[in-house]
Amino acid sequence: MVLSKSWAMVKHFTGAPKLADFKLIEKELPPLKDGEVLLESEFLSVDPYMRPYSKRILKDGDVMMGSQVARVVESKNSAFSVGSYYVANAGWRTHFISDGKGLSALPSNWPEKLPRSLALGAVGMPGLTAYFGLLEVCLLKTGDVVLVNSAAGAVGSIVGQIAKIKGCKVVGSAGSEAKVTYLKELGFDEAFNYKTVNSLEETLKKASPEGYDCYFENVGGKFSDAAMPQMKDFGRIAVCGAVSMYNDSVPQTGPYIQTSMIFKQLRMEGFLVHRWQDRYPEGQQQLLKWVSEGKLKYSEHITNGFENMPKGFIGMLIGENIGKAIIKV
Amino acid sequence: MVLSKSWAMVKHFTGAPKLADFKLIEKELPPLKDGEVLLESEFLSVDPYMRPYSKRILKDGDVMMGSQVARVVESKNSAFSVGSYYVANAGWRTHFISDGKGLSALPSNWPEKLPRSLALGAVGMPGLTAYFGLLEVCLLKTGDVVLVNSAAGAVGSIVGQIAKIKGCKVVGSAGSEAKVTYLKELGFDEAFNYKTVNSLEETLKKASPEGYDCYFENVGGKFSDAAMPQMKDFGRIAVCGAVSMYNDSVPQTGPYIQTSMIFKQLRMEGFLVHRWQDRYPEGQQQLLKWVSEGKLKYSEHITNGFENMPKGFIGMLIGENIGKAIIKV
Repeated sequence: MVLSKSWAMVKHFTGAPKLADFKLIEKELPPLKDGEVLLESEFLSVDPYMRPYSKRILKDGDVMMGSQVARVVESKNSAFSVGSYYVANAGWRTHFISDGKGLSALPSNWPEKLPRSLALGAVGMPGLTAYFGLLEVCLLKTGDVVLVNSAAGAVGSIVGQIAKIKGCKVVGSAGSEAKVTYLKELGFDEAFNYKTVNSLEETLKKASPEGYDCYFENVGGKFSDAAMPQMKDFGRIAVCGAVSMYNDSVPQTGPYIQTSMIFKQLRMEGFLVHRWQDRYPEGQQQLLKWVSEGKLKYSEHITNGFENMPKGFIGMLIGENIGKAIIKV
Repeated sequence: MVLSKSWAMVKHFTGAPKLADFKLIEKELPPLKDGEVLLESEFLSVDPYMRPYSKRILKDGDVMMGSQVARVVESKNSAFSVGSYYVANAGWRTHFISDGKGLSALPSNWPEKLPRSLALGAVGMPGLTAYFGLLEVCLLKTGDVVLVNSAAGAVGSIVGQIAKIKGCKVVGSAGSEAKVTYLKELGFDEAFNYKTVNSLEETLKKASPEGYDCYFENVGGKFSDAAMPQMKDFGRIAVCGAVSMYNDSVPQTGPYIQTSMIFKQLRMEGFLVHRWQDRYPEGQQQLLKWVSEGKLKYSEHITNGFENMPKGFIGMLIGENIGKAIIKV
């Protein structure tokens, strides 16, 4: 018998998630049936999307959703050998049984020297989000001026670096001096702490007086009020996240954007990365290549211990992390 | 010597334009130089865009911008013969001198039976706006459910009819019972008076319980608050106008749309029709064909007398017109 621990959402979050909203559950897993495998989570991912998704797909008491890098510890399925690693979407669990569906092997050319946790970050969902969001939604081209917020986060830090690789000017916004320093190290042309600037609008204007071609949106709300008027004609806005709004019970309001949209002929598109699921191998190989060559740097904010997973999640939502927030079991 | 009358904007509008904001100017035109032509306006166009554009491109005292169908009354340019008709962008003027640049001849196959004023409406800028907005921005396809507001207006009435021609379901919103009746005559599947419905949201839901693929936006503001949550996944929003907001001195506010944009993967694009200027002949021929075949119906709201042009403009902005608002000199 194997004991599996998991974290459930006691009831739907009101405002910012709190430790009391989570409950640790221990459960013995049944013996494997033919065709099944038992996996043990090595790294788990905490991501901003979990906050709004919890509202949409979870019931009170459900185990939190999410993905992990997990190792096969027992197998009754010849396609999955003991000791091999997979990315799974099994939620916040230490151990789980799978029939193999939805398990994605790490790329076979994964370099020994790279931590497997990158399959949840720069070479995983957040990296792919940056990659497809920039190329397919922002329609990035050489010479564009790119604005990204939450720029030191798991997605934003990759967005800025891909834009630099592609020959763009990159302006990043983040919420601490340490993050701004990190962005400069990553090669961002301009970076600022949105919490301490006098005027967001003036800061954006100064960072790129000619305006912005692409705006990779991770924040929404007041930040977008300041950014929208700075777009160039035919600017493209990729709406990836809206972390400043996820805790609202009453929706925040701001000035309507239609007039800017019309006169500047802007294009704004929301997206979920699984739209390009059939192109994940392409994206993942490109990201892996850039990381291996040192062109794409990564940072991980690791919380140790499965028991600290809610704390890691809450910390990520308030921006404690630089780079990808990871839970190491 | 020829006396030209024109209407100037005395000073920038504050809120809704008023009669006192306009001043009639009379001016003698000089004799023609070689290469020049003298034109006399037959029909002039008043359009919603003039309200926000005045703020952007006019100075106090400038003649109002706009287009007209005009007849050549004198010519010192062999390319322009007396008696021929052109669409010009000469502003609110009865007579004007041109060197020929920017004059567009009516299509050579213009049917005798069609009023030339249609070159300012169904077969002109508003028709082209509907055509390119639907095909190129909404990416309209057979079977789509299309929502359009200001649906009895110059653009909206063409939007709905093109969508019907293309095999879509069309829902239209307008501001009077007479307009709703007109929309039904045009073949709209559903039409309602937004001023008298109890709940805009419920009305939109009832008109298309499965939601909307395309939303052709002419109004903005509160209407968009109700419409955005009704979009289907991968819905497309063509932002053509925002007439409910043009008179604002303090921008109106409403709930942010980022969350809907993301989870439904919506695409919103603002546009100005001159983006497709090189394709005007294609669009105009298609519109002319549909009108000639009776597939595209039109209605004109004609204000007689150049002296009544400000009144016609003000009336159009508050929705007095069904179909295209035209000034007949």
